[in-house]
Amino acid sequence: MKRTMIKSLSEKKGQEVKIKGWVDTVRFQGKMAFFDFRDVSGKVQGIIFGKPEVLESAKELRAEWVVELDGIINERPEKNINKDILNGDVEIEITKIQILSGAEIPFDLNDELNLDISLDNRPYTLKSDKNKAIFKVQAEIVKAFRNTLGNFDFTEFQAPKIVGGDAEGGAEVYNIEYFKNTASLATSPQLYKQIMVGVFEKVYSIGNVFRAEKHSTSRHLNEYSSLDFEMGFIKDHTDIMDMLAEVMRGIKKGVEENTKDELKLLQAEELLIPDKIPTMKLSEAQVLLEEKLGFENAVGEPDLEPEHERALCDYAKKELKSDLIFVTHYPVSKRPFYTYEDEDEKGFTKSFDALFKGVEIVSGGQRRHDYDNLIEGLKMKGLNPDDFKFYLQAFKTGMPPHGGIGLGLERITQKILGLKNVKEASLFPREINRIDTLLSE
Amino acid sequence: MKRTMIKSLSEKKGQEVKIKGWVDTVRFQGKMAFFDFRDVSGKVQGIIFGKPEVLESAKELRAEWVVELDGIINERPEKNINKDILNGDVEIEITKIQILSGAEIPFDLNDELNLDISLDNRPYTLKSDKNKAIFKVQAEIVKAFRNTLGNFDFTEFQAPKIVGGDAEGGAEVYNIEYFKNTASLATSPQLYKQIMVGVFEKVYSIGNVFRAEKHSTSRHLNEYSSLDFEMGFIKDHTDIMDMLAEVMRGIKKGVEENTKDELKLLQAEELLIPDKIPTMKLSEAQVLLEEKLGFENAVGEPDLEPEHERALCDYAKKELKSDLIFVTHYPVSKRPFYTYEDEDEKGFTKSFDALFKGVEIVSGGQRRHDYDNLIEGLKMKGLNPDDFKFYLQAFKTGMPPHGGIGLGLERITQKILGLKNVKEASLFPREINRIDTLLSE
Repeated sequence: MKRTMIKSLSEKKGQEVKIKGWVDTVRFQGKMAFFDFRDVSGKVQGIIFGKPEVLESAKELRAEWVVELDGIINERPEKNINKDILNGDVEIEITKIQILSGAEIPFDLNDELNLDISLDNRPYTLKSDKNKAIFKVQAEIVKAFRNTLGNFDFTEFQAPKIVGGDAEGGAEVYNIEYFKNTASLATSPQLYKQIMVGVFEKVYSIGNVFRAEKHSTSRHLNEYSSLDFEMGFIKDHTDIMDMLAEVMRGIKKGVEENTKDELKLLQAEELLIPDKIPTMKLSEAQVLLEEKLGFENAVGEPDLEPEHERALCDYAKKELKSDLIFVTHYPVSKRPFYTYEDEDEKGFTKSFDALFKGVEIVSGGQRRHDYDNLIEGLKMKGLNPDDFKFYLQAFKTGMPPHGGIGLGLERITQKILGLKNVKEASLFPREINRIDTLLSE
Repeated sequence: MKRTMIKSLSEKKGQEVKIKGWVDTVRFQGKMAFFDFRDVSGKVQGIIFGKPEVLESAKELRAEWVVELDGIINERPEKNINKDILNGDVEIEITKIQILSGAEIPFDLNDELNLDISLDNRPYTLKSDKNKAIFKVQAEIVKAFRNTLGNFDFTEFQAPKIVGGDAEGGAEVYNIEYFKNTASLATSPQLYKQIMVGVFEKVYSIGNVFRAEKHSTSRHLNEYSSLDFEMGFIKDHTDIMDMLAEVMRGIKKGVEENTKDELKLLQAEELLIPDKIPTMKLSEAQVLLEEKLGFENAVGEPDLEPEHERALCDYAKKELKSDLIFVTHYPVSKRPFYTYEDEDEKGFTKSFDALFKGVEIVSGGQRRHDYDNLIEGLKMKGLNPDDFKFYLQAFKTGMPPHGGIGLGLERITQKILGLKNVKEASLFPREINRIDTLLSE
């Protein structure tokens, strides 16, 4: 007999079926036993009744044991029917049990746990309904990102993670022993995706990046998945914001259509991504903060504080019905060397942050594409153009005006789902004191 | 005026258009100039004729300059029509030129180059027709891998690249300074994808892996993209081979349908993936090698030599009309600790290699899913179960029978396209002596 997935059992009333999965719960009562079984597709109630030999073979079964079951799908008595849940109108009467694997569990799978205990036991706790829902939604976000860009003729590429010396001189770089040399782990695919614009005009890349941040907060991970796109022949940064808005609409549509049950289980709020995304310059945002939102000392600062970002998002949600807001024109001093300086507003850049539900999830903008202008950008940051010779070739040999974004997968997952800590949105979060298990000092 | 992509120009006869792209070639002749222009979608001939002011603005133009052009699409005179190429029936008569970016190129883009020079100049040489074709096909392989597995209800997940101490004790591991500890770069997502089978039953992951191999050959890369899947509730390794065959058929279909021009340009041979993939045990392959293929000393060896793999593939192609062949039942001694030992053939495993056009592109098989059996596997390899405590939780808390594969993206790209060196199939290959540029000793 072929396996039937549990989600389809309700269509098999009166039929004999084979299911495979996990014992979710079990209760023995005299000559009867009552179960919940689950597979990846859902759950079903089971019963053993009047079959002593089946009961005998079941007596060892405990939660999380892996089994293959034959049984008959019976309609439940009228009074036990629950139309609100999957298989609420049926149960499986078990005729044969084959044990595929035993289990010995440390605690109940759906217990409320503090984050450290949950992470210590990750191979087990990932099986909870909540965690499965989180990472189903995450898979859907990645898919929607890809599909949206695919529809706009972007080409996917694989960016390297091992990179040469730390040319940008950031403190947040991991070093690797690379044979007789020292190499680094990429903090972003930035330089490679710019190179790829010269090749395919519009590209995207999905992969892990690495930040050696010494602080452990609810917003930071030492390794995270970055969703990056970069596109050529743009007018300016507004083309990038328009493309990002398309991506965000694609993500909203993807998760709402394909992970409806998961969003419900996690009690996620409906996303507000209006046709026109609220957009303001940093200086305008700072005036707004002081004049309407009760802040002092915002105007003139080179950046927003975390509490400013939260306040702007609250405002945009309430007043403008948007979970997303673009803040543009950060000063040159606060942006990387490749950021395009606005000719009409010297000292400020055609860059932007996308704030989403209280936090920055995207950094993006137009890039310097002119070779001489890029060299100027490097020098302005005190960097040595010789360290960038390989990358600079792309600009010497014909680079169109271009720009792009980097979107943190775990952060957007966290924010869409209203999770407290970004680590809840990482399968195996890397922290200063944890790689799977706690590290010794 | 909105941009028209070059591939659509032939439909715009008599119309005014705007195109954006690169000067491919340019030739001035008296009061006329002749061009080829290209964008990511294709090429078109251009001409400046009888417009002195346009000619004046064009006089600096050289190969690879980036331009925005207005012009009229004219039908070519009958005798100049070439129906075999894109836009072979039209040319663009240029009325306005706007230079977006200059260029200064080291050599002609489609020159035949040795690999080192090609790699030294990668940001430039990637723009050649050949290289663009290679990485378009590669993007299509990734897409087909994903789509095939998506159709079979696999869930995508993001595997970490920073992993704990080198528990398996391989020599090929890169070390990272991880704050006060030493961590490693993952050589495979193996342990994580097994954990994820306990969560989602069927999973896949696409990402870079790292091998600190000290030798530089035409078959090896120090960083490569691994396409991995893992699935639960299998009968045995043959379920994995069946799924892999589906994936290979999906890849054949994907590249043939969506990168037809690229395959033609690269003169790729048609792929032979029959309905039934030739499958033999290692011991049978060794007998075949000795009895039919002229080898000695193959029988009884624990593994195949590279020349054996080539001979078996030649044989399978000629006699069995297949580019793919599965070799199963490698000895326990040659496979990792998690490999399932065949109960009916002790000492041999339910594992396989997929050989493809002369080389192993996939390693896969059934895994040990029983906790005690897995501990036995670890001990047999001299490994300490305490070092695997995190991973082992998955097996303590209910793991179904499962298995999977890892497929090297660059290797399959190389083999599908008949490239000599796997480095040609890596955008930015990492070698012992190269990270983008050559490393100092």
